[in-house]
Amino acid sequence: MATPIRGIFVPHVTPVDKAGRINDVELRRYLEWLIAQGVHGLYPNGSTGEFARFTADERRQVVKIACESAAGRVPVLAGAAEANVSETLKACDAYAEFGARAVAIVSPFYYKLSPSSAYEYFREIARHSPIDVTLYNIPMFATPLDVPTIRRLSQLERIVGIKDSSGDVAFMLRLMSAVRAERPDFVFLSGWEPTLMPLLLMGIDGGTHATAGVAPELTKAIYELTQSGHLAQARTLHFQLVELFDAMLAAGDFPAGFRAGVDLRGFNVGPSPQPLCVVDETARQSIARSIRASLELLN
Amino acid sequence: MATPIRGIFVPHVTPVDKAGRINDVELRRYLEWLIAQGVHGLYPNGSTGEFARFTADERRQVVKIACESAAGRVPVLAGAAEANVSETLKACDAYAEFGARAVAIVSPFYYKLSPSSAYEYFREIARHSPIDVTLYNIPMFATPLDVPTIRRLSQLERIVGIKDSSGDVAFMLRLMSAVRAERPDFVFLSGWEPTLMPLLLMGIDGGTHATAGVAPELTKAIYELTQSGHLAQARTLHFQLVELFDAMLAAGDFPAGFRAGVDLRGFNVGPSPQPLCVVDETARQSIARSIRASLELLN
Amino acid sequence: MATPIRGIFVPHVTPVDKAGRINDVELRRYLEWLIAQGVHGLYPNGSTGEFARFTADERRQVVKIACESAAGRVPVLAGAAEANVSETLKACDAYAEFGARAVAIVSPFYYKLSPSSAYEYFREIARHSPIDVTLYNIPMFATPLDVPTIRRLSQLERIVGIKDSSGDVAFMLRLMSAVRAERPDFVFLSGWEPTLMPLLLMGIDGGTHATAGVAPELTKAIYELTQSGHLAQARTLHFQLVELFDAMLAAGDFPAGFRAGVDLRGFNVGPSPQPLCVVDETARQSIARSIRASLELLN
Amino acid sequence: MATPIRGIFVPHVTPVDKAGRINDVELRRYLEWLIAQGVHGLYPNGSTGEFARFTADERRQVVKIACESAAGRVPVLAGAAEANVSETLKACDAYAEFGARAVAIVSPFYYKLSPSSAYEYFREIARHSPIDVTLYNIPMFATPLDVPTIRRLSQLERIVGIKDSSGDVAFMLRLMSAVRAERPDFVFLSGWEPTLMPLLLMGIDGGTHATAGVAPELTKAIYELTQSGHLAQARTLHFQLVELFDAMLAAGDFPAGFRAGVDLRGFNVGPSPQPLCVVDETARQSIARSIRASLELLN
Repeated sequence: MATPIRGIFVPHVTPVDKAGRINDVELRRYLEWLIAQGVHGLYPNGSTGEFARFTADERRQVVKIACESAAGRVPVLAGAAEANVSETLKACDAYAEFGARAVAIVSPFYYKLSPSSAYEYFREIARHSPIDVTLYNIPMFATPLDVPTIRRLSQLERIVGIKDSSGDVAFMLRLMSAVRAERPDFVFLSGWEPTLMPLLLMGIDGGTHATAGVAPELTKAIYELTQSGHLAQARTLHFQLVELFDAMLAAGDFPAGFRAGVDLRGFNVGPSPQPLCVVDETARQSIARSIRASLELLN
Repeated sequence: MATPIRGIFVPHVTPVDKAGRINDVELRRYLEWLIAQGVHGLYPNGSTGEFARFTADERRQVVKIACESAAGRVPVLAGAAEANVSETLKACDAYAEFGARAVAIVSPFYYKLSPSSAYEYFREIARHSPIDVTLYNIPMFATPLDVPTIRRLSQLERIVGIKDSSGDVAFMLRLMSAVRAERPDFVFLSGWEPTLMPLLLMGIDGGTHATAGVAPELTKAIYELTQSGHLAQARTLHFQLVELFDAMLAAGDFPAGFRAGVDLRGFNVGPSPQPLCVVDETARQSIARSIRASLELLN
Repeated sequence: MATPIRGIFVPHVTPVDKAGRINDVELRRYLEWLIAQGVHGLYPNGSTGEFARFTADERRQVVKIACESAAGRVPVLAGAAEANVSETLKACDAYAEFGARAVAIVSPFYYKLSPSSAYEYFREIARHSPIDVTLYNIPMFATPLDVPTIRRLSQLERIVGIKDSSGDVAFMLRLMSAVRAERPDFVFLSGWEPTLMPLLLMGIDGGTHATAGVAPELTKAIYELTQSGHLAQARTLHFQLVELFDAMLAAGDFPAGFRAGVDLRGFNVGPSPQPLCVVDETARQSIARSIRASLELLN
Repeated sequence: MATPIRGIFVPHVTPVDKAGRINDVELRRYLEWLIAQGVHGLYPNGSTGEFARFTADERRQVVKIACESAAGRVPVLAGAAEANVSETLKACDAYAEFGARAVAIVSPFYYKLSPSSAYEYFREIARHSPIDVTLYNIPMFATPLDVPTIRRLSQLERIVGIKDSSGDVAFMLRLMSAVRAERPDFVFLSGWEPTLMPLLLMGIDGGTHATAGVAPELTKAIYELTQSGHLAQARTLHFQLVELFDAMLAAGDFPAGFRAGVDLRGFNVGPSPQPLCVVDETARQSIARSIRASLELLN
């Protein structure tokens, strides 16, 4: 039976060297640390990983490293969106072979599609993919997926769950009602930090949170304390999570603040593949303070 | 000491007779029933009460009836927004005399104001109001209030709380962090049904929910079960609440579906003061089914 | 035959005295000046006139003064939106008696209505109004009116035109195509300064522009030069119009910058009925400079 | 001296064969026809060309074919956006060698960048590109470029113009005012059909319009009649252009209706590289009718 997709998955940043190439050594060192911190899964090629700023070959390299690092210890949810269905399916094939648990496929972007075209896109992938597929809904960047479309897609066997980064609690609750009647095992993952604890309490399975790549101890503790009913403690940590998340969001264009956060944890992530505004010293110190506050709360 | 503002307040509909006048008798009968069901407070002149579609005199009549009906048994939170500060202050004076616990003042609408103009508006009211003021944030209809502005306003003694109908959980959490450090007694009320239980679990004080005017038994039970830690039962009821809420939202232009819901509970609410699209029979039956399902869950 | 609604109508500000009452004397002096400058019509109780911040009685007073000032020399388009259809019809009756040419009724605000409810609202008014009605579409503040709804409304005899403040040229062109086939005399007025000249060239009838209350010479010249085919000169003036408009928009919450502009032309408009952020000296000087530049271009 | 960028450029669709590969033969036949119709330039890899749904290699193939087809008869504006600056610069190098007149680079998409990051992105490209660059602003799909950012970018020699598909006339006028003072030769192209004639009358240089790939006769006539002052005739054609444009937009997810339109002109464009909803027969007939009406108006 397949490993369940549950708990905190890390949509991790992608370290690059000075020449702009993926920093293989540092990426492995970083993933090893995340696994040692007890995260429940890895998520290469997410938005935090800046998948859209790498070439198709580089995206493959990243997933390969993640699968090799995980080495069966934790499941890998591999971002597999490419230019079109046929290219995406080639990525699915490759990631299945690398040993990923499932792929995560962001809703089509640049063009905003109608619900029925979004459905066609994912159905075509579901029909031919050799590996389980999770939907990735992120309306601020890509075609929004609506409840009826996701419900229809949840009836395809290959589609096993959804990561929702809308931050919209009402949407997630409606989705859970709509899908679970016919597909009780469908996986719901939050992708927007402030909704992690509230939605865990309403019954979702976990989250994929960029902040987990910076303070894995914190997200893991929130998950475990919430699931075991220690709400007062979890609440204190969750308010801290929102503060850390906000400090990194405010630091610059996403995911610059998150790259800075990982850097502050001792990993040489290098510059973004895109020349963005730099994270200034004030923002960096604010992130550092927030990381320290998080770790202190855990002691 | 002032009655705490806590629990479920009902932003009730406003029954009118065939001539379009406020139906005094039916309104009193309806409010008596709500109090008998154990709601924690009344909220006349909310969006559900269609305050903007009545004249200033009619708004006063509604609050007077609500205060007389409450008769000290439950607190009244009276919607007091008028055309400008001076007119609003006249309403505050009147509602204080009627015995309201506090007024609720919606952020300025029609024009969308900058945060500093919104601040000036509420500060001017706070300075002169003889009665406690709660802010009412409803970005889909009125000038959005942001976290820094609300934090500043929370430092004025007369401003004692906020009702937030944004449905945005992240916003509410950020607000709680920002305000409670310096004003620990500030009251947070949810105004969007799907966030009621999740936000209660994160520490808010209650909610003002139109659905509570249709199924007060349901909202009261969710509040009490959540506060006492019976999460599994509360969750089941909360998913039902979202279903009922959605059935009424889908029935027509807000608050037509909620008027239909109250009608189905046996009160003659009459037509809206505005000639809106009618709630058709299919929508009405869907609301009726959802009310029945709610009541069955409670037995 | 009724006076045609054509050319530049002035949605004028409403001067108030220190006590916050309408300044009857200054309003008359201001309107007299506007008429002397050759504006084609007056538009009391528009958004610029802050209709929503006055009481129903005050709105009536403003229209009465405008009609008396116009004294048949220019037509008056009177803003007549009130809390509901019945109150609005009372205003229509009054304004017909005052001698207004037509009323302008903004689409319902606060609540956002569906197209069919918006249709019902205007149809009910059209059925009972003793005076011609123009629709007022301003999607940034009120329920947007769409092309099919306006087309249906244009088939009611009493509805004779539309003022569109969306600034969306595509929308206006689609509307003209949709409406003129069956209602060739329907009046199209721009309500967003930057679209005045482009839309006049595409065949609209005129505009109602707040800037015309500050620099009536400029808007009138643009209108006349464009209609007579002097495009190069009109273009130069039009770019200046956009600059002046932007200076006033940037000065503070609408219509604070326009109040400051009228003040700079020598009229004592007093404070807004609402305590808004003040227009600072820098913004005021920028408006003054832009007014001077406008007048110099005309010499 | 470089060929001026002026008139109507065609952002053309990309024909594919049944296997989903670019149909070289049909693309050449189609471009030859467009040039024979007198279009002023070609624009491969635009949104209409579905650049984002092809691989980097395929995008290169398309530009190569366009440059070979143009063969110096008309200038080629080649869409050159790739995953990051370094990949984009490789495309710029290649397209310069193919003989393109300039590249067009869409603002970064998927992530929405701050103005300063958008500036950094284009500055970096401008510094290293061997070929002139035009900015491509399309806020509905990509990071919006604002006036101050474009003004700053217009001071870089390599950046010679902008294509704006916002449809926002006010934006374009503000931009023209802001840029022309210091860069009088900067090129302004409309990318949203309904604004073509209005903006030509305000002084822009031309347009890149998908509809020009379906009815090149029509867009060319509008351009020439407007520029030569035959406004009444141009206006009639322009309203027809909007109708044809709307028929194709309504036919399905963009650019499905435009592919159908080209197909109706006798070119075998094949399916989109993405499995979208099909254009149904009703929509297809509506497009066909609108093409016929366009051609009849021209006789």
